[in-house]
This record gives sequence, C-alpha cells and structure tokens, in this order.
Amino acid sequence: ATHKLLLLAGDGIGPEVMAEVKRVAQWLEQAGLASFAIEEDLVGGCAYDAHGVAISEAAMVRAKGADAILLGAVGGPKWADVPYEARPEAGLLRLRKDLQLFANLRPAICYPALADASSLKREVVEGLDLLIVRELTGGVYFGEPKTITDLGNGQKRAIDTQVYDTYEIERIAAVAFELARTRRNKVTSAEKHNVMRSGVLWKQVVTDLHARAYKDVELEHALADSLAMQLVRWPKQYDVIVTDNLFGDILSDLAAMATGSLGMLPSASLGAVDPATGKRAALYEPVHGSAPDIAGKGIANPIAMIGSLAMALRYSFNEGAVADRIEQAIAGVLASGKRTGDIAAPGMETIGTEAMGKAIIAE
Amino acid sequence: ATHKLLLLAGDGIGPEVMAEVKRVAQWLEQAGLASFAIEEDLVGGCAYDAHGVAISEAAMVRAKGADAILLGAVGGPKWADVPYEARPEAGLLRLRKDLQLFANLRPAICYPALADASSLKREVVEGLDLLIVRELTGGVYFGEPKTITDLGNGQKRAIDTQVYDTYEIERIAAVAFELARTRRNKVTSAEKHNVMRSGVLWKQVVTDLHARAYKDVELEHALADSLAMQLVRWPKQYDVIVTDNLFGDILSDLAAMATGSLGMLPSASLGAVDPATGKRAALYEPVHGSAPDIAGKGIANPIAMIGSLAMALRYSFNEGAVADRIEQAIAGVLASGKRTGDIAAPGMETIGTEAMGKAIIAE
Ligand SMILES: CC(C)[C@H](C(=O)O)[C@@H](O)C(=O)O
Ligand SMILES: CC(C)[C@H](C(=O)O)[C@@H](O)C(=O)O
Repeated sequence: ATHKLLLLAGDGIGPEVMAEVKRVAQWLEQAGLASFAIEEDLVGGCAYDAHGVAISEAAMVRAKGADAILLGAVGGPKWADVPYEARPEAGLLRLRKDLQLFANLRPAICYPALADASSLKREVVEGLDLLIVRELTGGVYFGEPKTITDLGNGQKRAIDTQVYDTYEIERIAAVAFELARTRRNKVTSAEKHNVMRSGVLWKQVVTDLHARAYKDVELEHALADSLAMQLVRWPKQYDVIVTDNLFGDILSDLAAMATGSLGMLPSASLGAVDPATGKRAALYEPVHGSAPDIAGKGIANPIAMIGSLAMALRYSFNEGAVADRIEQAIAGVLASGKRTGDIAAPGMETIGTEAMGKAIIAE
Repeated sequence: ATHKLLLLAGDGIGPEVMAEVKRVAQWLEQAGLASFAIEEDLVGGCAYDAHGVAISEAAMVRAKGADAILLGAVGGPKWADVPYEARPEAGLLRLRKDLQLFANLRPAICYPALADASSLKREVVEGLDLLIVRELTGGVYFGEPKTITDLGNGQKRAIDTQVYDTYEIERIAAVAFELARTRRNKVTSAEKHNVMRSGVLWKQVVTDLHARAYKDVELEHALADSLAMQLVRWPKQYDVIVTDNLFGDILSDLAAMATGSLGMLPSASLGAVDPATGKRAALYEPVHGSAPDIAGKGIANPIAMIGSLAMALRYSFNEGAVADRIEQAIAGVLASGKRTGDIAAPGMETIGTEAMGKAIIAE
C-alpha cells in the first residue's frame, strides 16, 4: 500500500532534520521496502511568514487527509511579537485539537551507548525505558475562559482555565493501561489532587477505571511535584506514567533530558480509532524543540525525526519490520561511535545532520 | 527582644523534626543567645483529628500574632478520604493566603559534603547555589471557579482557574530582582507564554518592571518545560528563578532533589513589609514533605527544620549572628561525617533524628 504522509518541517532545525527523513524515505522506496505519497506544507512561524497564520486551511485539509503527519518543530525568537492567535505554537495546537490527537506517547529511553551523555549518574539512567502518556487535547491548554482583561489603573488580569471531563480522563487512562500490559504492567498516575479539583477528578476516574477493567495492571498515584523529584532521583522505578496536558509537558521533557537522549527521542500523538475504517489520526514529532540557537548550522541531530518516521511505519502503516530496520540502523550507527554534537561525550569527534542521515542509510 | 514563635509541627515526620528545633531553641536560650516566647498548635491532619478542620480559628489567631511561624509538614495517606475543604493541605494553604505570604524563597544549595548524594553527577551539582522565588498566594492554587460539577450520564467536569493580576506578578518579580542584587545579579523568569495567557502577562510584567527599575540585573526568560530540563542538565547556569505558584511547586522540588540535599533545605514564605511597623508575616518550613513512610521511626533528617529556625532568626528576628552559628554547626556536623539516612552515601554509618539534633547543639 502507498502511505499518505504529510511532512510539516516547521521552524528552526525542523527543515534540516526533515531533509534526512526525506532521504531515508526515498531510500526505502528505492529499496522497495515502502511506498509513500508525500505531501509537504508549512506550520508555525514559516506559515505565518507565508500566510499570516500559524497553519493555513489548505494545510489543515491535507492534515485531515493524510495517513500520518510528521512534524519537525515550531517557534523561535523571530516570532516573539506576532499576535497571540498567530504565534507558531498555535499551528501545532490546532492540529492536536482539530484532529483530536488526545494521546501523546513520549518514550524516555536511555540508549546504552549514550548513558554517559546524561547529567545523571550512569547507574541512575542505564537501561532506563519508561513511557509518558500525556493527555493532549484538554486541560489548561484549551480550557475557556483564556483571556487578558484590562482592569484600568495599569492593572491587567490574565485567566487560564483547566477543564477536564470524566471521558477525557478515562480515554487517556485506558491508553496508559493498555500500553502497560505490553510493557512491565505498571501505571503511575500523576496530578495535584491536594490543590486542584481537576486532580481530584483525575485520581478518582483513574482509580475507578482501574478497578473496573485493569485490575491486572499495577496502579500507583503520585503528586506531580513529587514525581518530578523521583524522575530525577530514581527514574527506573517507573514503567508508564499517565498525566494531564500541562504536567505531561514538563514531566516528559524532564524524563527525556534525564536519559541523555533528548535529540534521540520521537513521540506519537494519536486520535481515537475510527470503528468504521480502523484508522486513527496520527502525528509524529521529535520531543526536542526548534533549537533556534543551532538552526541553519547543519549540526542538529536528525535521529529523533528519523525515529518518528519509524514510529509512523510501525503504528500508522503496520510496517513493523521496516520500522525495526530503521531502528537497528540507528543503533548500529551509535554503536560505531558516530555522534552529532548533542550526544557526543567531551572530546569525541562529531558529524553533522546530513552525514548522520547518510550513515543511517548506509547501515 | 523576646521573639514570638509559633510552632506548627503538623503531620508525619513534622513532630519529630520539630522536637529538635525545640531542643536547639532551648539551648540558645540557656546559652543566652536568644529569647523566645514559644507557642504550639496543630495544622493539617492532626488538626482535623482534633477539631475537624485543617487549622482552627484559634491557631489562625496565634499565627497572626506571631513574629514568625515554623511549620513541620502536613498530609499523609491517613487523611485521603476527609472532605476536600478539610484535607491537611488546606491548613497550610489558608495560612499562606490569609497571612498573604506571597513570596516563597526556596534555596537549592548543594552542600559540598553531600555532592555525592545526588543522582546527578558530582560536577553538575558541586557548588550549586540557586534560589527559587515562587509566587505563593495566587495562580491555580486559589483562582475561582474551582469546582467539580455533575453533568449527568456518569460524567463530571472539574475546573481549576489560574488567575494573575499585574500587581501580583510585579511584587514577586521585585522580590526576585532585589534578591538577585545580593547574589549573582541574574534572574530567570519561567512561564508558558506560548500556551497560557497568564504566561503572556507574566512575561510582559516582568519585562516592564525590569526596564523600569532593575536594568542592572541580568534578566532572561524561559519556558517552564525547558527550564525543568535545564535544571537537570546544567543547574549552575541559574542564580534566581522567579515563577508562578504551580510551576514553582514543581521546579523547586526538582531543584532541591537535584542538589542531593532535600532533607537539608529550609524555605521562607514572606508577606509584604508593613510600613507602619516594619514587620512582615513569615512562615518557615522544610522543602521536604511529611514523609509518612518513615514517620515515627526517629530517622528523619531534622536539618531542614533546624535550618528553618536559622532562617527565622536571620530574616524575622534580625539575629544574623545566631543564625550563622546554627548554620556553621550544621556544616561542622556534616564535615565530621555524621549523616541521617537520606544523606548518607551507601555503606556509611547513619544516626537518628535526635542524635543529629544533639550533634548540632554539641557543635
Ligand atoms: C510547542 C509547545 C506548544 C508544546 C507544548 O507545550 O505542548 C511543546 O512544548 C511540546 O511539549 O510539544
Ligand atoms: C502540601 C502542598 C499543598 C504544597 C504545595 O503544593 O504548595 C507543597 O507541595 C509545597 O510545595 O509546599
């Protein structure tokens, strides 16, 4: 089958790392391993520069028609002063919301060859393999009211609203429990029920769902602040962590950084499976951001972006064997000592974005 | 002068570590170094057990009359099912709100003798000395509406509201800039302006105040998720970090854990200076929580609690020299190799709570 893939390279290092995805996709096609119908479009600051919005309606139509979307990264200081509704992040947020990509899966894996790249001690991160399941279409990211009001006398009032309904918590918790069953069978649910009513409801709904349908999975509850500490102290105690949109934003970045593999980690944002077609909307993107400080230099690590293609092959296109080949090639390149700057130990020789892409293909 | 000190030991390890504060205070009085009028009362789960509320009106009157409050810790699984309004944390939150303790200062210091106790590499934490300035009376902790509503059909909706007004941001930013001037002259302000309107206002108000009154201080802005990562990667890049109530909750725990000194770190929560009396409401407490898992065993580390007394002597009682003596005694005890379990390297001999309190006095 030919897979309809939409590439949204975005801003900063996005286009550089996406170029390596194109290189890999092209090679897969030439080798007869997969067939793609690739479209490309703009999202983020580059879309604002071209169209005055963070994502155009045409791009949204393409996104809805694609089997999977690969996204590079959005944002950068260049767009610090654009109107709030048109800021680069608004494009990504609209994709998440309109496609109802409620389940964001962020694996935090410590690659053995990179265990020394972490600021954490080797014994703390070696062998680490946890998965953060972040709710992505609710909470304070989207709740209304979300306003800034002028109160007069030089005073303004800003309001953001965290809203969660039972069904939103239930569906993300179900994803976490299902994934735990394919892993080490443990779920840790994080909230702040001691200060937030949404935390109270979150804890209750997760507890009820567990009792009803997932008693075979070990469930533990944690406060988000305490979990952040434990992720630094001894992250290997976790298997699957499920949490809301805002805590998930922070905790997943934290977990990724702790592994020392930030430039290595892909993520998947998934919608519900359509019972009629068996399909689900899906967007794959690196955990890292647009890294404006190194953009344009050809030194960004393309592995998280190429790994995102592998994830798409596995989860959206049912091509697990091809995904395996890509991931083995990545592991092989690392084992051979090839490194971009972000994952190199001090004193190690480094290679650029393009050389890394080519090395993975060669492997 | 005799200092009016209110001790609220609270729950879990609170009473154990507070007992050592009493021992130190008594010794200071006997040595003629300070004079206290000490009162004691209940807060948290123990107050609920006694009075059915997390803090009694009588205790609130005492709190308002004290020159400073020392608080142990609140909460624990025993009170998981008490009504939301009476949960242990509500006592602490009421103290913060009613006394308008808007400025929470949380130093994250890596004690040289403990650099190996961190899960971070020695070179990452050695010499670390940063200060988190957390807004403590606003944001999602207190904003209304804060509700759970029954929608029927088994569905509920939970709402929490993050509210910030200009003046709230301005006064906490001013505290951060003032403190930076006494330190390394750098402030990092953290928010999520890319998804939260309160983040937009936060960044704007901090930027304006800086331009108006603190141009001599270096100011940098960071997204809260990215700051969490950087706190793990290379925390020594920071001096003073200023942030809102919820981000401050997470980031300060994280910073404290990274230092390896969690059981060591006191914090101060301060109100505004009353221009008439020159006084400010103040509450001092350890950064660590009630640690129900080790409560009652006599093994908790009392240093953060004793350090909180030192902070009270310095900031509320103007007894900097006495505070210095306490802090030097703590450093001396550590240098002599005495450790409670939380800060001991593997294989090291450990001592209990009481022995640690006595060792500090002896020193
Ligand atoms: C770019 C930004 C809107 C986004 C978020 O906050 O969700 C990013 O930090 C992420 O984690 O994907
Ligand atoms: C006990 C709890 C309400 C409190 C908070 O969330 O502020 C604690 O975590 C803290 O950081 O002081």
